[in-house]
Amino acid sequence: MRTGGVLNILGKLLLLLSIFLLTPIPFSYYYDDGMMTVFLVSAILGVMLGGGLVCSFQPEEELGYRDGFAVVVFSWLGMALLGALPYYFSGVMDSFVDCIFESMSGFTTTGSTILAQVEILPKSVLFWRALTHWFGGMGIIVLTLAILPLLGIGGMQLFQAEMPGPTKDRLAPRIQDTARILWSVYVLFTLTEILLLMLGGVSFFDAVCHAFATLATGGFSTHTASVGFFDSAYIESVVIFFMFVAGVNFSLHYHGLRGRMSSYWQNEEFRFYVFLTAFAVVTIIIANLIYGTYDSFSQTVRTGFFQVTSILTTTGFGTADFDSWPPVCKILLVSLMFVGGCAGSTGGGIKHVRLLLFFKYARLQLRNLIHPQAVGTIKLGKVKVPREVLISILGFFALYVAFFFLATLVVTALGVDIVTGSTAVVATLNNIGPGLHLVGPVQHYGHLPPLAKVVLTTCMLAGRLELYTVVVLLTPDYWAMAKKPVLRWKQGTKASTPK
Amino acid sequence: MRTGGVLNILGKLLLLLSIFLLTPIPFSYYYDDGMMTVFLVSAILGVMLGGGLVCSFQPEEELGYRDGFAVVVFSWLGMALLGALPYYFSGVMDSFVDCIFESMSGFTTTGSTILAQVEILPKSVLFWRALTHWFGGMGIIVLTLAILPLLGIGGMQLFQAEMPGPTKDRLAPRIQDTARILWSVYVLFTLTEILLLMLGGVSFFDAVCHAFATLATGGFSTHTASVGFFDSAYIESVVIFFMFVAGVNFSLHYHGLRGRMSSYWQNEEFRFYVFLTAFAVVTIIIANLIYGTYDSFSQTVRTGFFQVTSILTTTGFGTADFDSWPPVCKILLVSLMFVGGCAGSTGGGIKHVRLLLFFKYARLQLRNLIHPQAVGTIKLGKVKVPREVLISILGFFALYVAFFFLATLVVTALGVDIVTGSTAVVATLNNIGPGLHLVGPVQHYGHLPPLAKVVLTTCMLAGRLELYTVVVLLTPDYWAMAKKPVLRWKQGTKASTPK
Repeated sequence: MRTGGVLNILGKLLLLLSIFLLTPIPFSYYYDDGMMTVFLVSAILGVMLGGGLVCSFQPEEELGYRDGFAVVVFSWLGMALLGALPYYFSGVMDSFVDCIFESMSGFTTTGSTILAQVEILPKSVLFWRALTHWFGGMGIIVLTLAILPLLGIGGMQLFQAEMPGPTKDRLAPRIQDTARILWSVYVLFTLTEILLLMLGGVSFFDAVCHAFATLATGGFSTHTASVGFFDSAYIESVVIFFMFVAGVNFSLHYHGLRGRMSSYWQNEEFRFYVFLTAFAVVTIIIANLIYGTYDSFSQTVRTGFFQVTSILTTTGFGTADFDSWPPVCKILLVSLMFVGGCAGSTGGGIKHVRLLLFFKYARLQLRNLIHPQAVGTIKLGKVKVPREVLISILGFFALYVAFFFLATLVVTALGVDIVTGSTAVVATLNNIGPGLHLVGPVQHYGHLPPLAKVVLTTCMLAGRLELYTVVVLLTPDYWAMAKKPVLRWKQGTKASTPK
Repeated sequence: MRTGGVLNILGKLLLLLSIFLLTPIPFSYYYDDGMMTVFLVSAILGVMLGGGLVCSFQPEEELGYRDGFAVVVFSWLGMALLGALPYYFSGVMDSFVDCIFESMSGFTTTGSTILAQVEILPKSVLFWRALTHWFGGMGIIVLTLAILPLLGIGGMQLFQAEMPGPTKDRLAPRIQDTARILWSVYVLFTLTEILLLMLGGVSFFDAVCHAFATLATGGFSTHTASVGFFDSAYIESVVIFFMFVAGVNFSLHYHGLRGRMSSYWQNEEFRFYVFLTAFAVVTIIIANLIYGTYDSFSQTVRTGFFQVTSILTTTGFGTADFDSWPPVCKILLVSLMFVGGCAGSTGGGIKHVRLLLFFKYARLQLRNLIHPQAVGTIKLGKVKVPREVLISILGFFALYVAFFFLATLVVTALGVDIVTGSTAVVATLNNIGPGLHLVGPVQHYGHLPPLAKVVLTTCMLAGRLELYTVVVLLTPDYWAMAKKPVLRWKQGTKASTPK
């Protein structure tokens, strides 16, 4: 591994984050919440750390395939650590573990909080929470659409063909191009949502924070009652629309904004996403009507639309306590938690496309049982899916199941009950936010044992980075190679790239 | 499809079951419980139905590959239906749905019961419950070791090489040979357990019934308190040993009994089974010691060993109410419910070998990420696993997840709470018996809505027949082919077999 090159990139990222750490200062000044020093000190520490790394380590002209894993994992760890400082210095949280939990929850766009009440926080800290989502969301778009496909992670290479920018080439220059294109889409949507929320009477501060949390499918709100605080059908509709938008592959938006609206419907994953949303909304509305959960029809419809979109896109905003809904709704919502957004969106979870291929394979297997000599292929849209991708999805599921099982085992071993413990793991591993029971939509994670918080923080990170990235770094093989540069794998990508 | 040939086999099976229907009569006479007419009438109806089928339809010289699916599914449906008659005629159950549930639970060796109290049943009916397990267990051994591999179901073809009997050949003659060998092993173990239980002071009646339920990994007991009724370390040890034995691939037992004891440890699935059992036993004993669930150390150890073996082998016998154990034990036991026994055992669930290959694949994927140009293969023992088998396992998981999700959705939609509903599906789909909460180890299934019982009955059948078998019959493709014999698939197996 080119450790120097990796640390140089990490340093640059921390410098960038330090600039972002200054942005809450105007809010602190305006609302006079006395947090200016907190953010200034955090930013200075960030500059010292980041600057130190950049000065100590030379940038590498080219980073190798395997270095990508280290860059990705250390980036998120570095962000979570630096981003936790304002929470720690402001004294709004009891322990550093809590600060790291909240910070990781922000940068991974999870939205699980350890806070019982959020209104009591200084405004600038609330802004920082929302900003960590937005910053993390930017990272995820680049990660899933530009970096992971190059690393060949869990079927993500499939989307390479459809992407606007890079091909299987050197990491740096093309990634920057792709990032610039996708970020402009991201910024454009954020500004539009801010504007639309303000038209609905939301304050500038709340509009910015909620738009940040929506586009990143994060879920941190500036109110304990979340979006339910506004109690407005218009505002909920705006948020529903942008949650849905944030759950779509951003390269589709890129095409859409360039006038090729047909690319949405031509995308099979998008159609599956629309179908699943519609199915869940209808089922939940019918169930809540039959059980008479709400007095009014309109509230049933509103909460149904809102919660399904919020959970399926892994945002985690709330307008209703779905933990008090009938069992069938709870099962459906927990199942949707596993699905997550589309690949290339800011949403977490297993992703629609993996599920789609999973079931396509089951269908092909059934057909093969009836016609044993027929050779079947699986297509996604018009593209034939290679077997390697299918098998990498099997591997992804194995890691996913193992992670889910081990994390749940540890959390419940610490005395957490089974519904709380298992749904807390589901909610963090899939980057959603709320689970059920003691971590339900009107609850929080603050009361969990510290070790459980550490495990759940790891789940957020692993889930966000598609598991493989984190697990690869935990294998001795990865580090053994790093220590023996003579055995370094000849990089196919590098060798075949004309200079 | 050769409908006539399939119905002829079904008729013969029903005739055989009718003979078994006569065996409770001596018990009825001895205990004078007035059930002789019930069993006689049931047997006569069975003979009429079975005889009618045998006389109306000619046996086919050879049955095709696709006919196998129909034979398997209709066999279990036919057994469940005929086996429900004694329950219905004796009037011990409220509805025919309950009778079918209990009968299917018997023949699929699930062991879920709709009865709150079992001691109040006539002795002969208790014997019949145990006998349905034993009869079903015989069916399962033949199914998994001789029929499913021929049908190419979900990776089961892998064991063909290791089996004592058949090769990929015509169904009938070789299957009979295999069946005879494996049944003699099954009978031998059953007789040994009866003897050992009687040496521990258990009555002949209880010994027979419990041995039947153990070797079939069923779980029906003649006492509401299950094996806990005897409150004897010796009896529990005997049952633990034979539950463990019943969870092992029966072809290993065949080799073992012929003196090749080394074949056990050479089998990688067996080693994984031993490892997983040991891991779960130790974890649960430690957790129960820390939580102080029991006053005495010996009881903690005894219940730990018993419950792990009972759940992992999908037997479902109880000596303790594990629903009152600490959360980590409950999560571990529920996770073990998915695993099930080894392939080729009478145990249900996903099977150890599938899980083993699943995780081997994850490991290979991780290695491939680090060495992208290396070509990896997966071995099971010394045999290289073909890609087709790996991919068929992916298909199996997809069907499994879909079945689990849909069944849980329907059961909870009927108003059952989420823990009860989801664990009831887990317990029936994996052929275990008890779940948690309202279907926990000291509870029963009788209070569930009738439609939920129908769904759970379907889960038992589908889980027992490795999903594919049942789902294939539900595809229009299967029946479309059947209607158009001119398009009938050329049977590779038949064509290549020299007469």
